Amino acid sequence: MSPIKHLDRALEQALKSHESAKGPALLSKAIRHAVFPGGARIRPQLTLAVAHACGNDDPQLSMASAIAIEMIHCGSLVHDDLPCFDDAEMRRGQTSVHKEFGERLAVLAGDALIVMAYQTVAAASRRSAQRLAPIIKTISEGVGAPFGIIAGQSWECESQAVLSDYQRSKTGALFAAATASGAQAAGADAQTWMGLGEWLGEAYQIADDIRDVLGDAQFLGKPSGQDEEHHRPSSAKELGLNGAVEHFDTLVGKAISSIPSCKGDVALKRLVAFEAERLLPSSWFQDDERHIAVVAQRQFA
Amino acid sequence: MSPIKHLDRALEQALKSHESAKGPALLSKAIRHAVFPGGARIRPQLTLAVAHACGNDDPQLSMASAIAIEMIHCGSLVHDDLPCFDDAEMRRGQTSVHKEFGERLAVLAGDALIVMAYQTVAAASRRSAQRLAPIIKTISEGVGAPFGIIAGQSWECESQAVLSDYQRSKTGALFAAATASGAQAAGADAQTWMGLGEWLGEAYQIADDIRDVLGDAQFLGKPSGQDEEHHRPSSAKELGLNGAVEHFDTLVGKAISSIPSCKGDVALKRLVAFEAERLLPSSWFQDDERHIAVVAQRQFA
Repeated sequence: MSPIKHLDRALEQALKSHESAKGPALLSKAIRHAVFPGGARIRPQLTLAVAHACGNDDPQLSMASAIAIEMIHCGSLVHDDLPCFDDAEMRRGQTSVHKEFGERLAVLAGDALIVMAYQTVAAASRRSAQRLAPIIKTISEGVGAPFGIIAGQSWECESQAVLSDYQRSKTGALFAAATASGAQAAGADAQTWMGLGEWLGEAYQIADDIRDVLGDAQFLGKPSGQDEEHHRPSSAKELGLNGAVEHFDTLVGKAISSIPSCKGDVALKRLVAFEAERLLPSSWFQDDERHIAVVAQRQFA
Repeated sequence: MSPIKHLDRALEQALKSHESAKGPALLSKAIRHAVFPGGARIRPQLTLAVAHACGNDDPQLSMASAIAIEMIHCGSLVHDDLPCFDDAEMRRGQTSVHKEFGERLAVLAGDALIVMAYQTVAAASRRSAQRLAPIIKTISEGVGAPFGIIAGQSWECESQAVLSDYQRSKTGALFAAATASGAQAAGADAQTWMGLGEWLGEAYQIADDIRDVLGDAQFLGKPSGQDEEHHRPSSAKELGLNGAVEHFDTLVGKAISSIPSCKGDVALKRLVAFEAERLLPSSWFQDDERHIAVVAQRQFA
């Protein structure tokens, strides 16, 4: 079974355990709509891959950490899509949660997914109770104030924001939590694996900015041109398209180099390279001389 | 130092530890606005009182559980006040968070407070790591799907709702989490203390309904007449004003009777009685013959 199928099955089980015939039905439906169908599930895949690289001696806990990260990610997308933020009608190729269920249920489904994430990790910690508090710390730092994705999103409300602070918080923080919590779920040190997530997360945000400019609505599964429309900091705007692509490549290179020699290192490097190629396909740039140079410099494992 | 001052000091410390000069300033301000000044802080007071009744052998953990409950409560008020729900301009006698900081920061501050709650409990669990998972389970069941306060709020989006289900989830669930987590933080059994929270929470919701009808905007710290305006289920509407007051008294009586004989039982019964009197002052009903009868039946400790 592919990692994505494993993840989807675990998400399905977790969602089911939070549903009841006696509970409000629309809330359950809205939560499901936020989680299925998924996107690339790249964050939880990273959690599992890092846990595997660290021995994965408690697979129940690593899977719980992985889907907790994904639940929070899905919840954050629901809130980011709200009318007061992006007012996005589409997400992952289907209607956004607030378009389908209304704004109130979108707020509540996002809230419920944050709660469910913590509940899921706690429920899976029986074998390794000592690991629970560190995992919660890691996840919370990736999500909350002052440097998690919530802080990242709130930089958009400030009159001034440093692009790198914005990107590190808005996307990098949850990627860092994904890799670090994977290590912690396997009893390993979080710090060793933090860089991988941070660099990859920043690269991810840059790819998103580039795609937003290129107008790739089909891939994004949401409208493009949003950064411009919402006056958001954007690396494509700040560095130019070529500069942004170069920066992307540098970050992916750093992410790959940060992977220490370990059990699953080859598979992990391959996952990162595959994801980088999925985010910004080399073929996109082959018609343009300046970009061919950029593509040639890429050294994915 | 009074329990409220103790709680406010702990809340202040927790908020401070999630602030940074390098983080987004407005988010921190919005979070502060949501937490200070507080209301009656009745939920966390209950957590502390129950922990005390159970021996309170880990005061750091019981205080963390108490303020976690309060953070989640404050976050839920911020989201409940949003334009898509109550569109409340005032809360606790000051402007609501979205009126002061805008809708986006209100959504984010509410999210951040949920995250901070879990982070706070985890950070305080060093001495009693085995208690962390059960406390998180209890808090999450009081907050999330399918029966927590988020579910309670989402009953307002369903075409039909049973009043008792709505009230139990909307308010009772977090009160139950408050008392049960206080017991768990002291290493005691959650079940013994669940009833106290449930009954008191239901009573609290009824008092809120009654006050909403009586138009006590000053006490509520928010506009009255909201249940009618938002077509919400209300016990004052369903049982009539007298019926609702009678039901309130029955529930408070049950809550008090549920307190087992223990170290702090007298103080705890006094807290419940004081809170009941604060919620629905006997003096309110003395001009009305039918209500004098109701008042006379009250048997607070």
